[in-house]
Amino acid sequence: MEDHWGNSPSSDDRVPGTDLHLPLTGKGSKRDQLMHALREAISSGRLAPGTRLPPYRALAKDLGLALNTVGAAYGELVAEGWLTARQGSGTRVAQRSRPLPRERTHRSAPPPRRPAHDLMPTSPDAAAFPRTAWQAAARRAMAAAPNDAFGVGDPHGRIELRTQLTEYLARARGVRTAPHRIIICAGVAHGLSLLGTVLRRPVAVEAYGLDFHRDLLTAAGRDLVPLPVDAHGADVGALPGTGAGAVLLTPAHQFPTGGPLHPERRAAVIDWARATGGLVLEDDYDGEFRYDREPVGAVQGLDPDRVVYLGSLSKSLTPALRLGWMAVPDHLVDELLAAKGSRELWSGSVDQLTLAEFLAGGAYDRHLRRMRQTYRRRRDQLVTTLARQAPHITVSGIAAGLHAVLDLPPGTEQQALRAAGRLGVALAGLAPFRHPDSGMPARDGLVIGYGTPPDHAFAGALNALCMALPAAPQRTPRG
Amino acid sequence: MEDHWGNSPSSDDRVPGTDLHLPLTGKGSKRDQLMHALREAISSGRLAPGTRLPPYRALAKDLGLALNTVGAAYGELVAEGWLTARQGSGTRVAQRSRPLPRERTHRSAPPPRRPAHDLMPTSPDAAAFPRTAWQAAARRAMAAAPNDAFGVGDPHGRIELRTQLTEYLARARGVRTAPHRIIICAGVAHGLSLLGTVLRRPVAVEAYGLDFHRDLLTAAGRDLVPLPVDAHGADVGALPGTGAGAVLLTPAHQFPTGGPLHPERRAAVIDWARATGGLVLEDDYDGEFRYDREPVGAVQGLDPDRVVYLGSLSKSLTPALRLGWMAVPDHLVDELLAAKGSRELWSGSVDQLTLAEFLAGGAYDRHLRRMRQTYRRRRDQLVTTLARQAPHITVSGIAAGLHAVLDLPPGTEQQALRAAGRLGVALAGLAPFRHPDSGMPARDGLVIGYGTPPDHAFAGALNALCMALPAAPQRTPRG
Repeated sequence: MEDHWGNSPSSDDRVPGTDLHLPLTGKGSKRDQLMHALREAISSGRLAPGTRLPPYRALAKDLGLALNTVGAAYGELVAEGWLTARQGSGTRVAQRSRPLPRERTHRSAPPPRRPAHDLMPTSPDAAAFPRTAWQAAARRAMAAAPNDAFGVGDPHGRIELRTQLTEYLARARGVRTAPHRIIICAGVAHGLSLLGTVLRRPVAVEAYGLDFHRDLLTAAGRDLVPLPVDAHGADVGALPGTGAGAVLLTPAHQFPTGGPLHPERRAAVIDWARATGGLVLEDDYDGEFRYDREPVGAVQGLDPDRVVYLGSLSKSLTPALRLGWMAVPDHLVDELLAAKGSRELWSGSVDQLTLAEFLAGGAYDRHLRRMRQTYRRRRDQLVTTLARQAPHITVSGIAAGLHAVLDLPPGTEQQALRAAGRLGVALAGLAPFRHPDSGMPARDGLVIGYGTPPDHAFAGALNALCMALPAAPQRTPRG
Repeated sequence: MEDHWGNSPSSDDRVPGTDLHLPLTGKGSKRDQLMHALREAISSGRLAPGTRLPPYRALAKDLGLALNTVGAAYGELVAEGWLTARQGSGTRVAQRSRPLPRERTHRSAPPPRRPAHDLMPTSPDAAAFPRTAWQAAARRAMAAAPNDAFGVGDPHGRIELRTQLTEYLARARGVRTAPHRIIICAGVAHGLSLLGTVLRRPVAVEAYGLDFHRDLLTAAGRDLVPLPVDAHGADVGALPGTGAGAVLLTPAHQFPTGGPLHPERRAAVIDWARATGGLVLEDDYDGEFRYDREPVGAVQGLDPDRVVYLGSLSKSLTPALRLGWMAVPDHLVDELLAAKGSRELWSGSVDQLTLAEFLAGGAYDRHLRRMRQTYRRRRDQLVTTLARQAPHITVSGIAAGLHAVLDLPPGTEQQALRAAGRLGVALAGLAPFRHPDSGMPARDGLVIGYGTPPDHAFAGALNALCMALPAAPQRTPRG
């Protein structure tokens, strides 16, 4: 290489090694450090394009490096395009056109300031994640995993997990399925996106629901038809005549208004699906948490050929593990797997195997029992605090889940949200959940999540909430 | 509830408990077991719609259950829509319309028979996954994680991982970036999908490349322009005039043909990007594995404002953890995060934190060193075996990575693939990697992955491969 580069100590335009200020620091070998220092010197402009580098003997001596360390670094930087080496011309910094004037640099917005009190209806109690039990399940799963668990995965999902879910969902949620009819996905939203691409006709949605889910279905090309919602859930009697081929429901606990779907409506939606070849998409997002009695089983059990059941860990354990599942009719399995794609975007195998162990060992049941007590206590505390400090506010949807709805006098929702913001309370109004074309009268209210705050901060969060609520109407003195 | 249901032992159409055959088995409470048995009896048709159920006193006696266990089970099944309870009419199986005749049941295709020898160029050695080291990193990560690691995640990715990757990529790959410019994704394919939605102009691609990546960009709405490929990688000199706003390259090791991008082409593509405001998408899928000398650093280092660097664990560690990363120009961070969405499809936090620990503790470097030796040994074995058993076949692309290309006489690729199939050898031909509109002459060849087979099976796989290759051309006797 020496011959080829042709440097010699007498070259007149060489940068003496001592002037280069190449600090060799950081991790890695001396060669790595030298390469790093040279790249920095070039990219900062200290070594301009066309500059001849010192012969590597000279640089090696100056920096106290072995000859072939410098030779190797030069060689690598030539291969990478930083330097050029031509017979007779030595090693030089590569010529490069000037960069365009830099486009306006958008700095990422700084992360939003964390609110003092988080009552958003989004998340379970992160502090309650059962680290030790999860870690123990991971250890068992890792020890038991066959080698193919670390190869290219099956988008269907690990069979170990699908088998455990079949048993668990039957026992805890009344779901009737089989391992080959379960598809593992990265969460309910992922499942809905896949369904959106497989369905052909419009999808009926609850007039109050997650705008985020509506957007996913729309992005997948589906037209949406809103269904009215009342205290008994969605009015599925309105389905005939809408042209909908599927209906997305939250039967265990209507989101966000909070009622369970009435038994007669459960029966009616199955009848509709059977009569029309329609499909029920059952989002069972928090079905495990019910406080007034045992959890209400899934609609799916009534007809596994007409219902797609969707669930995930997001409310029951953590949204940080991207794990969800669909129990689907037999005739949709292949189409949904094709939509999922043969190569990418499935959930990590280690997490899947760990969850299978977590289910098999009973740790999931234990965690749910514990959290049911925790959340029930918080719900009671919310109700008691409101009864004492804001008795004029009606609270509903409290039989289940991680959130409740506070009904507000008409026209006061925005004002309450602003007041909450000033008090450092993050919470959601009802408005964003309302389908814009639902035709239902807008209802003023707040959706209060009680899962997120840590235990010690919950009372303070409730007090701040009560301060943000509209005052009781003044009694007009008679006469 | 007793009054309300109005059952009495003398009802004439009741099904006597003793005839019901309700086997109470399985996990869960007696109530769960009874509910399960009743659901089964109803869904199997043994309990027909409209049938009156036995009064719960009678059933409790027959099955040896507490009264309120039966009452609770009936109540739940009413709530779920399986039963109806009307004053004066007792508890009955809910009426339901008959299901439509079942749609043709597609059984999922049985999983393809596993080939005897897997030489597909897709995957690293699954058996070499460092379970113990990964598990140790997971334990440390779990102990150190703040509570918010188990809350709603940031689609940007965990800062712990982005910080570690910044350091690692600088040291090992010459990437110049910063934590806020790294975006964690579920793999290179996920990253390309996001880029596809953010780019506006056509994307130039290598005439030989992953059809899967081309499909992702097309699905995102991008037109593709193929660039010729030769032994020095893609001919980026053909870029001007194509109208492309970006170019997808595999500079460290052209996939699948195997050459590194020539230093002059590295410089030229940066010049093109600077002159036109274009973007280089650098897929560094196996950059860590280079055998003839140290890995060639990333093109990204030459101009971090004009190159998006994409990497993942899929070749270096395992494709089973869905973890990849992009180092992107500052001005693209916000747009790419918006495309990723604020809610879903990020990678699991536990895996992200574990990888951060795995990097910080040096376990990733150790694993790469070990695998470099393993794959180098396999590559040598492939080359030696071919030299001995099929000296007429040229092998190329062997300086790096987990695969090599065997050049075949024109018109023999399909025949060789069929022969390999008969011998139980899974491998890929060159044809599917060729862009159909590339204008390049089709080249016959096989792409041989040597990462997948376990060590003990590798020699057998190579022997089978050699048997599938076209025989040496007969020498025509002179005269």
